[in-house]
Amino acid sequence: MKDYIQVTTTIDTNARAERLAQALLEKRLAASVQVVPCWSAYRWQGRIERGREFRCAIKTRADLWPELVALIRSLHPYEVPEIFATAILDVTQAYGAWLDEELAEAHDGR
Amino acid sequence: MKDYIQVTTTIDTNARAERLAQALLEKRLAASVQVVPCWSAYRWQGRIERGREFRCAIKTRADLWPELVALIRSLHPYEVPEIFATAILDVTQAYGAWLDEELAEAHDGR
Amino acid sequence: MKDYIQVTTTIDTNARAERLAQALLEKRLAASVQVVPCWSAYRWQGRIERGREFRCAIKTRADLWPELVALIRSLHPYEVPEIFATAILDVTQAYGAWLDEELAEAHDGR
Repeated sequence: MKDYIQVTTTIDTNARAERLAQALLEKRLAASVQVVPCWSAYRWQGRIERGREFRCAIKTRADLWPELVALIRSLHPYEVPEIFATAILDVTQAYGAWLDEELAEAHDGR
Repeated sequence: MKDYIQVTTTIDTNARAERLAQALLEKRLAASVQVVPCWSAYRWQGRIERGREFRCAIKTRADLWPELVALIRSLHPYEVPEIFATAILDVTQAYGAWLDEELAEAHDGR
Repeated sequence: MKDYIQVTTTIDTNARAERLAQALLEKRLAASVQVVPCWSAYRWQGRIERGREFRCAIKTRADLWPELVALIRSLHPYEVPEIFATAILDVTQAYGAWLDEELAEAHDGR
């Protein structure tokens, strides 16, 4: 099985989550993105902050991580956006074949 | 610690998410299921599609994966449903004991 | 990269999720917490139960897991709360630096 990963990022508006998902899919750096409204509490510059955010779950491959991070940062308004990856342990054969079909070749310049 | 995993699938209606959760719990292929409304963007047959979905987080054991996948596919309307597993790294002792009590023996035919 | 993890717990009210997030951040056992409303189905004392819950995604380090579990259990109303950890495979450099800055030293008694 290839190294599939789920990348999570959170962003401040639904409109920005839409633009991010669209760009990731257009460049085939993601095969699917789910977006969930949430509230977040976090530490920033010595204070505990709270706000509404949109949590994006991005399904991709490990070798696309550098390109994917660069695209997220180019579209993200935060100075330090939350961007982390978790390993996907297993997928169904059909879902894996679909991921392979929909995701870009790494570093193929598209 | 046993090989606990979280299986994620997304489905098109809340009613189907309810039926899926009920069936997984009845057959002890899951100990708990959380369902979250979301919107999804994904590639399908050459187009970028968008839709409302329900994201199901299913807590189970790795050895139950084949039976769990078969049950999800039998109840899922999509041709290629998203079904993937992530490893659970650690659990509290009490939660682990509860998982062991609630989950089926693998391949015990129940 | 350090051993960052995501800890998931679900709790019964938004108010309790707020108190939990605040306490985790104050004690620097979490750098950020996202909370999402969900519904849950689970087995409890021989029955399948259903209820509204709030799913908390807590970003922290593996060595803080014992202290974090103790704090969650001290604030959680359930006899056996769902508390599990998943490994974070990768983070951006900036996000990792922020996690390091915001999270406590393990066992430093703060």
